[in-house]
Amino acid sequence: MKTIPGGLLFSFEGPDKAGKSTQLQLLAASLRQCGYQVYETREPGGTILGEEIRRILLQFKGEDISPEAELLLFGASRAQLMSQLVLPAMRQGAIVLCDRFIDSTSAYQGEARGLSRDFIAAMHEFTLQGKQPDLSFFLDLDVETSFARLRKLKPTFTDDDRFEAENRAFHQLVRQGFLKLAAQYPQRIKTFDASLPKEELAAKILQEARNVIG
Amino acid sequence: MKTIPGGLLFSFEGPDKAGKSTQLQLLAASLRQCGYQVYETREPGGTILGEEIRRILLQFKGEDISPEAELLLFGASRAQLMSQLVLPAMRQGAIVLCDRFIDSTSAYQGEARGLSRDFIAAMHEFTLQGKQPDLSFFLDLDVETSFARLRKLKPTFTDDDRFEAENRAFHQLVRQGFLKLAAQYPQRIKTFDASLPKEELAAKILQEARNVIG
Repeated sequence: MKTIPGGLLFSFEGPDKAGKSTQLQLLAASLRQCGYQVYETREPGGTILGEEIRRILLQFKGEDISPEAELLLFGASRAQLMSQLVLPAMRQGAIVLCDRFIDSTSAYQGEARGLSRDFIAAMHEFTLQGKQPDLSFFLDLDVETSFARLRKLKPTFTDDDRFEAENRAFHQLVRQGFLKLAAQYPQRIKTFDASLPKEELAAKILQEARNVIG
Repeated sequence: MKTIPGGLLFSFEGPDKAGKSTQLQLLAASLRQCGYQVYETREPGGTILGEEIRRILLQFKGEDISPEAELLLFGASRAQLMSQLVLPAMRQGAIVLCDRFIDSTSAYQGEARGLSRDFIAAMHEFTLQGKQPDLSFFLDLDVETSFARLRKLKPTFTDDDRFEAENRAFHQLVRQGFLKLAAQYPQRIKTFDASLPKEELAAKILQEARNVIG
């Protein structure tokens, strides 16, 4: 087993149906073939407490939860994930792949919901305990394609659906949020066209990962 | 029904078994007799989401939750309480009485667990949306008396008990935390000797409340 001193943390970011989970699994398989120890996780969730928080976030999604409470629940899940999984795995020299991370919080809760950027930045610092993702793969997809993919999988999808409740305008803001972050942190956040064929996208992502692993 | 423009928020703070809930109920009864609309609530909890968070905090108490995640869960419960109960009640001109509030977070998570005071202050500002309690009743009790009261009610009480798990040293720090806050915010936080007879304590608390109600 190859180990990397200090470990690595890679995050997958982007809208629903951009292919984050699929690409995460493909990258995990490639990195394991190269001999690395890989942990796959997700947010919110990834720990017993985090999955409880995920359940609550889905249960109360919409008008039953204040935007501030929602943000802090995402933070709580992340703090637990860092302590229980990410930091111990990195100390072992492993690579952690996380499906959604800080940039989703900044794009959804900051840019789209308009919550305080300063507080979100402070929360990122607090929950990450001084760490940062080593690389973030932003799978960019326009809102119409994201919605079309949702409808294809789930013909009952509407803007009122519990899991995909937010409307077009909201998702436009989310996308703007991701694009701004990618412009702000070009070294960490790499943008990919999520409409590319799965294998082509996977090859590009693997190449970026290799550049960082060295 | 007498209303107070902008409403009032009073919190009850202090260690376990200081009599916070009892005094809160007594003050609520007195204020209702005077004709005020009074809401009684507690933290964590007080809303459907908040009570779910309370359940999780008790379920995961101890080593299964990171201190950072615990702090953010308290914050999420508070944010929801402010949006769903405290702010709407205050807009109606009511008096809200809350069993534990920001000072418990500062004393337990800040002073005793040693989490970042700056982040806790930022979280208070974020969750309170610019408000502050109008008055906080700190029921001060030495650790031995608090522990003796716990043992009397619950002969199986030990330092490992799930609900009262923290040890003496931890509770000494909590008390120091409350005393520091009371010294820092003498206008807002009023300190009471929680070993006084119940009725005597209630009379003193009512007097302070009346001073603020005017």
